[in-house]
Amino acid sequence: MDIEQFRKAGYQAIDRICDYYYSLQERSVTSQVEPGYLRQHVPLTAPEKGEDFQIIADDYQKIIMPGLTHWQHPSFFAYFPTACTFEGILADLYATSATNPGFNWSNSPACTELEAIVMDWAAQLLGLSPAFMNASGVGGGCLQTTASDSALVAIVAARSLYQRNNPEAKMEDLIIYTTTQTHSLGLKAGLVLGLKVRAVEVDARDQFSLRESSLRNALDEDTKQGLKPFVLVATVGTTSSGAVDDLSEIGKVAKDYPSLWIHVDAAWAGVALSCPELREMLYLKEINQYATSFCTNFHKWGLVNFDASTLWVRDRKYLTEALDVTPSFLRTKHGDAGTVIDYRNWHLGLGRRFRSLKLWFVLRSFGVEGFQKYIRKSIELNNLFVKLIEESGNLSLVTPSSLALTVFRLVPKSSAQDAPAFSTQVLNELNHIFYGRISARHDILLTQTTLNGIFCIRLAVGAARTEEKHIRSAYDLLVKEANAVLEAYSESLSARGPVQKETHTKGII
Amino acid sequence: MDIEQFRKAGYQAIDRICDYYYSLQERSVTSQVEPGYLRQHVPLTAPEKGEDFQIIADDYQKIIMPGLTHWQHPSFFAYFPTACTFEGILADLYATSATNPGFNWSNSPACTELEAIVMDWAAQLLGLSPAFMNASGVGGGCLQTTASDSALVAIVAARSLYQRNNPEAKMEDLIIYTTTQTHSLGLKAGLVLGLKVRAVEVDARDQFSLRESSLRNALDEDTKQGLKPFVLVATVGTTSSGAVDDLSEIGKVAKDYPSLWIHVDAAWAGVALSCPELREMLYLKEINQYATSFCTNFHKWGLVNFDASTLWVRDRKYLTEALDVTPSFLRTKHGDAGTVIDYRNWHLGLGRRFRSLKLWFVLRSFGVEGFQKYIRKSIELNNLFVKLIEESGNLSLVTPSSLALTVFRLVPKSSAQDAPAFSTQVLNELNHIFYGRISARHDILLTQTTLNGIFCIRLAVGAARTEEKHIRSAYDLLVKEANAVLEAYSESLSARGPVQKETHTKGII
Repeated sequence: MDIEQFRKAGYQAIDRICDYYYSLQERSVTSQVEPGYLRQHVPLTAPEKGEDFQIIADDYQKIIMPGLTHWQHPSFFAYFPTACTFEGILADLYATSATNPGFNWSNSPACTELEAIVMDWAAQLLGLSPAFMNASGVGGGCLQTTASDSALVAIVAARSLYQRNNPEAKMEDLIIYTTTQTHSLGLKAGLVLGLKVRAVEVDARDQFSLRESSLRNALDEDTKQGLKPFVLVATVGTTSSGAVDDLSEIGKVAKDYPSLWIHVDAAWAGVALSCPELREMLYLKEINQYATSFCTNFHKWGLVNFDASTLWVRDRKYLTEALDVTPSFLRTKHGDAGTVIDYRNWHLGLGRRFRSLKLWFVLRSFGVEGFQKYIRKSIELNNLFVKLIEESGNLSLVTPSSLALTVFRLVPKSSAQDAPAFSTQVLNELNHIFYGRISARHDILLTQTTLNGIFCIRLAVGAARTEEKHIRSAYDLLVKEANAVLEAYSESLSARGPVQKETHTKGII
Repeated sequence: MDIEQFRKAGYQAIDRICDYYYSLQERSVTSQVEPGYLRQHVPLTAPEKGEDFQIIADDYQKIIMPGLTHWQHPSFFAYFPTACTFEGILADLYATSATNPGFNWSNSPACTELEAIVMDWAAQLLGLSPAFMNASGVGGGCLQTTASDSALVAIVAARSLYQRNNPEAKMEDLIIYTTTQTHSLGLKAGLVLGLKVRAVEVDARDQFSLRESSLRNALDEDTKQGLKPFVLVATVGTTSSGAVDDLSEIGKVAKDYPSLWIHVDAAWAGVALSCPELREMLYLKEINQYATSFCTNFHKWGLVNFDASTLWVRDRKYLTEALDVTPSFLRTKHGDAGTVIDYRNWHLGLGRRFRSLKLWFVLRSFGVEGFQKYIRKSIELNNLFVKLIEESGNLSLVTPSSLALTVFRLVPKSSAQDAPAFSTQVLNELNHIFYGRISARHDILLTQTTLNGIFCIRLAVGAARTEEKHIRSAYDLLVKEANAVLEAYSESLSARGPVQKETHTKGII
């Protein structure tokens, strides 16, 4: 493809992306394809001779597009949002057009320098302490791929620091601390590193937040048994329910366990720190006081296209002392002089994309005010959903909603006041059916979770095009499906007749 | 930014990328900025109010572009090439425009299915055994970020397998095998995992290839001492000199050490397996016979924009058994049924970009023939450079060239036949000065390396726009700089007069 062919294909791509966004609301949220669909459209081997690009571009529309789930659809409420803005798309386009692997300063100074600067912009946007800023010369931040990578990097640095300070400690005794509500990244880091993981129990009465006594008891117990807890992954905004670990109490415990590295994973909720009114509930002061490292993903709720996981550490040496490998072929004048950051020593791989460009484009285009406005709008829309649930007949919150995330389930109102309450088991069965009906639809997407044995449904707001009408129609649709479940349930009870009904009712109490 | 503003900004971006490629040859290869340059142009905090996008787009040209090193420049011969094709740019643009984190089949079926298919295309392109293909249902391939990630994933899977088979093995006894010429990814994996690494010595007489006796001796020695070598990172095409480990001999040793996982890292050279005439020298047959996992980076010499590291394993269960974590919020109907691949269990993170699209666009647009043609052209250009070096007066190969990589240095021809040969130390000093002069230039970029104490210079061919004229002018420029070094050296000897000259000459023998 020559330059003019690229211009033509590029214009067409831009036009087709415009068409995509014009038509997004009319599309299904989820794909309707069945496993294996693509093998019917794509040959098993690459073509021997090159094909015309127009055919390839058309095939994207014809055979790839039907297999996509549209995460930017206004009725996408699953998982957490994955940001996609036009500014992010354009930044990625510019960055890709001059591809370079940016592993040290010399091989593209702008990439390293922009990353160092915009990470400081982001730190200030969130109210992080100057200690975490690159300008401090001690702490610093850099972009990682995902929150899993960020956590893994932090845990590796923590283990390395612990081992330097405790050279006699055996790997078999090292233990990573998470809670039972921590994202799977904690367990995965344990698998990757071959280290023990202890998931400390959290309580529904504490809204699934890690509290002092549970943490202290676990630490005391493990320490007595000779285990070496060296890192705690605390969460600000868990995936299941948006729970926030009590960093104030964790900080108190940490004083008695000074070698415990506290990694705060705020993958989803961290960007909400941009709004001053949310900082207290998200423990900003304590993050600044106690966190050794802090992560949030701008590619979730933060308007920056995947991937843009921001990781800050209180001391950059923790990273470089754990990860620096500089063979001869990677040595450079400026790197040797120590006058520049070589980001390859701040993450797991060597090469890295020029990701800071999209963070820069987005933060400039939205400004701090625009960014805050976006976050607040998502929260307001979620508050509307919460209000609708609270006023509903048969839907009920499982735990208080968190920012832009609501966890709810179907809890049928009894027709008679003295009717027995439904058992957890029956409610779980009903909600499985309820969720099955919702997930069989293609015009909306929500995901499931389980909280202390309770099967529930999550609704996360955050797609850029979601408006009040989408929340209201999501609610209407949920009510409709809930009613269908209840009708079927009621019919099934009737069909069994009085004896079975009694048996069944007994079984479910 | 609304849709029509995006259309305008998108067209402009495409036009500016066209301008960039029209002007690429006239640009300096390297940036001329000094460390810290960007802080003079970018404020320390994000703007409070959003800025007009045109200002932002213009700033990319004005302040970012001067800080870029142009890896696509035809006179870029450093490190290894980093592929950038228009097809790759367009695929990335489409993929980014419908951002989704693709961590399981359900959340965007096309992403998973296309990856499974094009990884099989790539496997066939390279001549890999059907055992490595996704269609086999046993082995399989997936895209990783970098060769470092691929190696880390392979090593984690190897360690996990070893520990399952040898539950009594202590982490402290596990040992990763590399050679002294393995890429830093081996050492880095050791740092990340906290495991021992043994770099087995390779010999210049074997052209830095790992041979049977060294490997066997090391394994015997370590095993006797109770250590547990569980993985060997063998290399097809080392970074320093393009050396190829003797996989035939390694395979023999492996028969006596059946629990040794052989990961073949062919990050750079692997794509050359697309050419049947190169398969024997690159040990394709032995890769298919002995490798447990194999990696090559299409984002280096393989025409696909960064990042596109392809990793294949002989048994996908090795990955999933090492990395599978499926919490409730990630469970899906198809995932539970096992009818689909959930790629999140094949790599370190959770979310992943839709990278297969660019591999698909590139392989279709070039076809197998176009891909081979590109590889062969790079090798021919390198052969021209080798010929020029061999015919030159003062430049000399350090080791036979490999594919599209040449390692050479300045070795002055003595004017008198009986003049003493230069010592390694003096040659290293001269070549440091030589390389210093080359790297002070901005119209060309080469990198340095060290081979068994010999300081040398690498020239790697592979940028898409490199033609014969760029090779010839690179050679002319090198000769000019070499002559300048020799003149200065000769003057410095004369200036010292006969006595110092003698002393110095003695010192350098």
